Amino acid sequence: MASYGFLGLGIMGKAMALNLLKAGFDVTVWNRSPEACAELIEQGAKQGKSPKDVAAQCDITFAMVSDPEAAKAIALGENGVTKGIGEGRGYVDMSTVDDDTSKAIEAAIQTAGGRFLEAPVSGTKQPAIDGTLIILAAGDESLYQDALPCFEVMGKMAPYLGPIGQGANMKLVVNMVMGSMLTAFSEGMSLAQKSGLDANQLLEVLANGAMANPMFKVKGQMLLDDNYATSFPLKHMQKDMRLAIALGDKLDQPLPTAAAANELFKQARKEGCADQDIAAVYKVVK
Amino acid sequence: MASYGFLGLGIMGKAMALNLLKAGFDVTVWNRSPEACAELIEQGAKQGKSPKDVAAQCDITFAMVSDPEAAKAIALGENGVTKGIGEGRGYVDMSTVDDDTSKAIEAAIQTAGGRFLEAPVSGTKQPAIDGTLIILAAGDESLYQDALPCFEVMGKMAPYLGPIGQGANMKLVVNMVMGSMLTAFSEGMSLAQKSGLDANQLLEVLANGAMANPMFKVKGQMLLDDNYATSFPLKHMQKDMRLAIALGDKLDQPLPTAAAANELFKQARKEGCADQDIAAVYKVVK
Amino acid sequence: MASYGFLGLGIMGKAMALNLLKAGFDVTVWNRSPEACAELIEQGAKQGKSPKDVAAQCDITFAMVSDPEAAKAIALGENGVTKGIGEGRGYVDMSTVDDDTSKAIEAAIQTAGGRFLEAPVSGTKQPAIDGTLIILAAGDESLYQDALPCFEVMGKMAPYLGPIGQGANMKLVVNMVMGSMLTAFSEGMSLAQKSGLDANQLLEVLANGAMANPMFKVKGQMLLDDNYATSFPLKHMQKDMRLAIALGDKLDQPLPTAAAANELFKQARKEGCADQDIAAVYKVVK
Amino acid sequence: MASYGFLGLGIMGKAMALNLLKAGFDVTVWNRSPEACAELIEQGAKQGKSPKDVAAQCDITFAMVSDPEAAKAIALGENGVTKGIGEGRGYVDMSTVDDDTSKAIEAAIQTAGGRFLEAPVSGTKQPAIDGTLIILAAGDESLYQDALPCFEVMGKMAPYLGPIGQGANMKLVVNMVMGSMLTAFSEGMSLAQKSGLDANQLLEVLANGAMANPMFKVKGQMLLDDNYATSFPLKHMQKDMRLAIALGDKLDQPLPTAAAANELFKQARKEGCADQDIAAVYKVVK
Repeated sequence: MASYGFLGLGIMGKAMALNLLKAGFDVTVWNRSPEACAELIEQGAKQGKSPKDVAAQCDITFAMVSDPEAAKAIALGENGVTKGIGEGRGYVDMSTVDDDTSKAIEAAIQTAGGRFLEAPVSGTKQPAIDGTLIILAAGDESLYQDALPCFEVMGKMAPYLGPIGQGANMKLVVNMVMGSMLTAFSEGMSLAQKSGLDANQLLEVLANGAMANPMFKVKGQMLLDDNYATSFPLKHMQKDMRLAIALGDKLDQPLPTAAAANELFKQARKEGCADQDIAAVYKVVK
Repeated sequence: MASYGFLGLGIMGKAMALNLLKAGFDVTVWNRSPEACAELIEQGAKQGKSPKDVAAQCDITFAMVSDPEAAKAIALGENGVTKGIGEGRGYVDMSTVDDDTSKAIEAAIQTAGGRFLEAPVSGTKQPAIDGTLIILAAGDESLYQDALPCFEVMGKMAPYLGPIGQGANMKLVVNMVMGSMLTAFSEGMSLAQKSGLDANQLLEVLANGAMANPMFKVKGQMLLDDNYATSFPLKHMQKDMRLAIALGDKLDQPLPTAAAANELFKQARKEGCADQDIAAVYKVVK
Repeated sequence: MASYGFLGLGIMGKAMALNLLKAGFDVTVWNRSPEACAELIEQGAKQGKSPKDVAAQCDITFAMVSDPEAAKAIALGENGVTKGIGEGRGYVDMSTVDDDTSKAIEAAIQTAGGRFLEAPVSGTKQPAIDGTLIILAAGDESLYQDALPCFEVMGKMAPYLGPIGQGANMKLVVNMVMGSMLTAFSEGMSLAQKSGLDANQLLEVLANGAMANPMFKVKGQMLLDDNYATSFPLKHMQKDMRLAIALGDKLDQPLPTAAAANELFKQARKEGCADQDIAAVYKVVK
Repeated sequence: MASYGFLGLGIMGKAMALNLLKAGFDVTVWNRSPEACAELIEQGAKQGKSPKDVAAQCDITFAMVSDPEAAKAIALGENGVTKGIGEGRGYVDMSTVDDDTSKAIEAAIQTAGGRFLEAPVSGTKQPAIDGTLIILAAGDESLYQDALPCFEVMGKMAPYLGPIGQGANMKLVVNMVMGSMLTAFSEGMSLAQKSGLDANQLLEVLANGAMANPMFKVKGQMLLDDNYATSFPLKHMQKDMRLAIALGDKLDQPLPTAAAANELFKQARKEGCADQDIAAVYKVVK
């Protein structure tokens, strides 16, 4: 039976590793603050000593950390994955990182003889717990095939998207559409109310038409409640929109709707909503 | 048993009147070119002689015609509804007309002693056939209550939205959101493909996430097939966006996302796509 | 020697009529509140009894009133210009009115046998006093030729722009460019200051380059002084931008820069700047 | 008498060095292809052997090269400026480079004991010949004072803008305003013509009003002639707009007008106008 490693047990990582354990997989875990491992050890996980150690022991090692710096430290640091990974072993970084980071890690893993896959996810805490993440995999295709049983446990879909970078690109495209959709929706909600319409009726009409989607339902309720409890931080959305527009710039793709929406998210950041939920863009629209 | 009239048997009107008949209602029909009545007479409808005649005979008369001119002709013309409608009878105009037309018809019907409701619909041919239109009713609330059994047969929802004008306003808001969503989606589809991503995979990812909605599915396939067969003419969408933005102007509501999207629809009109489906906005985005 | 009438002696009209007098022209004046005539009578003007009376006595009658309603009252009312104007006499409306008003007045004047010219002006109080207005004339070309000596006294340029409507159209185009230029400038002023640059240095650099223009100089100082004393009311600019965009809509001309700028002016109106100077758009940009 | 070096004798550099010579300064020149030095030697310049050599001999050395790579090679390369510059000598880079390049060069020059100033210019060939460039200086203020006599010969203004980076920032702000002004102007020119107005009359009206500026005059004629001969390449403008918007992003400054204008420049790049003059943005507007 294959053995799997999991590095990084934050809110997302812990839920994902737990799903691997529940599915009966052989899992070795490691986290910077070791206490985060306790719950998983109780559920049957083995304790890894370092990223190097985990990568050396397991057929495939997954990582889920919060930013590019942490991703580089875990992969390239003194006791990092590249130091332990041997010929043919696999490393799957599920963190959301930039292109340069992803390519630097890929190069180092390949130099060390390993295989590498980037697999950023779409979805937050609840989908991580429910095993319904959308996993955007790109890089070594044989590793993708080997990791698929794990992906099936952690997510509801995990398409293989091509060479390194395409996982990140897909995420940018999806979030760019989401950001524009949210400002469009916010404008509609505000226009409806200024016209004297009942916003609940607008939500109901939208929910029954061709545009019906879970986001309008969830965010619509938040707008009505003036509740911007953070599920997806606005500053991250704005960063993704900026990067998507930069990608369009590189590829000669004008994106006027996204550019207008991006300015609204910047306005919201200016008004102090950076750490609130993306729904807070409504505050500068209304 | 109440009796109902139906004026205007185009693609939409015929399907709607047929649903009333199938539900067992007593229906009298009239159409400018009388041959359009044949199929409905066969199904048990009575033949009306003129809008005046239908309005005089039926408790509630519905109308579904193609533009404000036709709506005014039917309601206010020589043998129009206002000439026949008596004290307490009802007239429900389900056509999409502008505010001024709606208010002019309301005033004339009230002067004649009748009750008036505007009830424009969201949805095209298939929902009309299936009885799954979204009916946006506004005006006389007692007439709304009386017409509800018919609305339930013709549509899947028919909220009462307030005084005359609010049916039209709701439709503008909904179409404004739709237009912005469609340009946002088009930008995402094009950016994905320029990045080397597979557009089918983008559609799949979107279909599994928080933004999943029928429109992305249907229009996404059209974009991929380069098929712009008209279901909702682009020029009508652009007109609704213009009117929604004008409404925002009147109400001090900035709408930057919608304004950017509107310019793309205008660009598409400039490029000769006025009579194609709204999906043709993709041609100026890509 | 030709005789001239002047109707409407507000801030603008009084200054313009005074310039005609100073140039030695024979001028008959009329104003709704007769006391406004006193200063001009002192300077040698004759007192007219009504618009009808002035139009009947003078070869060419000019009008400068504040809005379409006043323009219609003076031209079409009981003692209006159309009642007095005879075969061949001329009427020049220098007020800023909408297309429909202009066309209605033209039709009535022509029916009465007169000739009509619309000649809205670009420029405010000081240029009116200095005789440096820009006069945008359109309509009857022979009347234009006859009025030219007066235009030369009241303005620094007075191109003939074509049939009725083109004076108003030119004004919309000019104001649309001005509005976009002002939001672009405001964005630059704010970005400079947030970058730690000295805004006075930016003004100096702009004043020495290819973009050097009087507006940046004047409005730049206003922005720095946080002084929005009204020279051109923001709500009028926003109205002109709306109308210019509507004109583009009619002519299949996308105007994305103007549309984005217009949303900023709407935002400024929303924030309570409607009656302040157009420079107040800076308050929502910074 | 102070001695000056000049590195880089392209179209701009040659004109600038010639102005120093004509003003009677002691100038040593160097260029990668030595033949470019001939004309200047004839006019009295001395021939330098390398950037290192020039920097070692002269009190202040100026450089004007085409891109960041060339700027780094000249400053940091084997026979670069840093190898020759001694305690207290000065180096003024007048090339347009990015922030990182400028800071890297500053650090290396300071380590070598020298003083550094960035001084990108606004203006193209003709102003370089005429000595009417706008020089945007930032960095070592004592060096700025020492270089001022030279700046006065090469340009018409040379404000000191603060620490390294502010020269580049000022240039971005200025070009951002220029780009937005140009799309606004293009929209006005096209709307005027679609309305049936004469574009020459619009140019004349603009030339006489508060917006009168040299750019409208020059570019206006180019639009009318359908002449896009490159004076300022469109792709460089689009790059500057992208960088200005990125600067705004970093500083929480929304820039909706510039963002809309930037999308038009991207559209123009997409349509193949990257190497044409910035005026070619008109081609996607009209």
